[in-house]
Amino acid sequence: MKKFINSFDDLVPASVAGLVMAHEDLLALNETPLFVRRRTLKQSRVALISGGGSGHEPLHTGYVGVGMLDAACPGEVFTAPTPDQIVAAAQRVEAGQGVLMVVKNYSGDSASFQVACGMLEVEVECATVLVNDDVAVEHSTHTAGRRGVAGTLIVEKMVGAAAEAGADLYECKALGGRVNASTASMGVALTSCIVPEAEAPTFEIGASEIEVGVGIHGEPGRYRRSLMPADDIVALLLEPILKDLALAAGRSVLLHVNGFGGTPLIELHLLNRIATQRLRAEGLQVKRWLVGNHTTSLEMAGASLTLTALDDELTALWDAPVTTPSLRW
Amino acid sequence: MKKFINSFDDLVPASVAGLVMAHEDLLALNETPLFVRRRTLKQSRVALISGGGSGHEPLHTGYVGVGMLDAACPGEVFTAPTPDQIVAAAQRVEAGQGVLMVVKNYSGDSASFQVACGMLEVEVECATVLVNDDVAVEHSTHTAGRRGVAGTLIVEKMVGAAAEAGADLYECKALGGRVNASTASMGVALTSCIVPEAEAPTFEIGASEIEVGVGIHGEPGRYRRSLMPADDIVALLLEPILKDLALAAGRSVLLHVNGFGGTPLIELHLLNRIATQRLRAEGLQVKRWLVGNHTTSLEMAGASLTLTALDDELTALWDAPVTTPSLRW
Repeated sequence: MKKFINSFDDLVPASVAGLVMAHEDLLALNETPLFVRRRTLKQSRVALISGGGSGHEPLHTGYVGVGMLDAACPGEVFTAPTPDQIVAAAQRVEAGQGVLMVVKNYSGDSASFQVACGMLEVEVECATVLVNDDVAVEHSTHTAGRRGVAGTLIVEKMVGAAAEAGADLYECKALGGRVNASTASMGVALTSCIVPEAEAPTFEIGASEIEVGVGIHGEPGRYRRSLMPADDIVALLLEPILKDLALAAGRSVLLHVNGFGGTPLIELHLLNRIATQRLRAEGLQVKRWLVGNHTTSLEMAGASLTLTALDDELTALWDAPVTTPSLRW
Repeated sequence: MKKFINSFDDLVPASVAGLVMAHEDLLALNETPLFVRRRTLKQSRVALISGGGSGHEPLHTGYVGVGMLDAACPGEVFTAPTPDQIVAAAQRVEAGQGVLMVVKNYSGDSASFQVACGMLEVEVECATVLVNDDVAVEHSTHTAGRRGVAGTLIVEKMVGAAAEAGADLYECKALGGRVNASTASMGVALTSCIVPEAEAPTFEIGASEIEVGVGIHGEPGRYRRSLMPADDIVALLLEPILKDLALAAGRSVLLHVNGFGGTPLIELHLLNRIATQRLRAEGLQVKRWLVGNHTTSLEMAGASLTLTALDDELTALWDAPVTTPSLRW
């Protein structure tokens, strides 16, 4: 295992400090407990918070800023943040209109956010959106129910735009639920990642095997296959997504081609072309795109496809200005 | 070798088409010969063109847009574009004020751009900026003189801002030379990349070795070392950069921490923190940052540090608005 690292203990806090240094106009760091927040806080608006295990960067810290998250709480690598991080972040960024927490559906994350909401309840009104966009498996290693994966940033972007525009806590929560229900994802791994302290791959995979339906911590997916052409991989990923969303012909969609960290853009753009053409052949209108390494699993090679059914409201929320380290327009 | 690919032959054109699909508001594709251009062309301004081998994405195609490149010509993987691509791109985007070509210093690239300039000379005024920011080695596998690496995007960004603001061809060329002279880079590889058609790593490297001074095609660097803590790697990279630039104490600098493709953000942010602290300890003022996988070598794990000495003019050019797929503010 070769990584740029000094010690396992300081990897997460030092890395988060490095992110904030590079964006000092936009972000502020809270060292203890660890969280990243918008430097200029919102006034009289719903505050939006997320968090989760580190190793998925830019998710979530890279999406703190104007028009998206107000704060993000990074846990240790692939480990949920602790409730005290979430409580401290919520207290710091809340602006009198309550706090909405966007939580990927993993047992550890949902427990931490639930405890934090309980602790905050007296002083700050809290609500939660649980993201479970991964159609690969119904229950998984760390999950009761479906996992939350790359669709999380789409929820964060759209709800962030609504919060910025003044939607109240219950409108934001309802919107988050609607975006989640309109979103489905499926991923495939070519290699495993190596968790720093583990020093060995999370799972073994043969030199010509792929893991279809993999989770973002290297959890097992649906099945193994031999490596196949990109055309066939895209077909394998889109089939369960389209089945899940059951979209009428002519429907507008957002296509998010996400890399797991170790897959270069040249391959992600190829996947985008194939997926876009295939969706058009299915009668869908691909209207918006996001292609890149956004919800990652350290250096895992692999990718996921995420589809969100759009209407005019969701399209406008996606298009609304956003200024964060890793999403900006 | 596991990659998302259909066939070697269509990888580059299909991938470039996938990029343009995802940014159809900003970019237009020319299929034959292959180049990417701004959809809305500049009027009465110097046009800025670059290009080079594919496999370094987002460089250069990801930097086409407003305030940066007007067109980019992608060659096959790690192979220079052909003169006909460059000529066709220049003819399409030139706006009566000449064309400036930003060329990384590799023998193949410089030959192609030189031939293209010769072919264009009668109809379009051409000038060239040769980027050679890599301080690792004086001559290399594919180079007479120093290599052009991650500093290239800094030249493209600053000259792009000047061209957008109406600087003439000779001002743009002089500025490009000045940015290049103010910029120095040094990289280190933890793993080799695998060129798709080669099916084997470009170079062999031991399980606990690093290649210090590696080039962006996996060319040999200065020396091999055993893996060491990130603190020590940053020191090894900064030493020759600082020696080359010989900056006075108090000087303002831009720090670019670039990943080679396979190194996750969690590690790049850690490197950023270490490098920023070290530069400050040297008496320099780090005023601007860019951290991410920008000038890549397919899926190579590794990183480079680039430093550009800033003055008020260069700072303003860096800060000027830019709208491209991979750099946007």
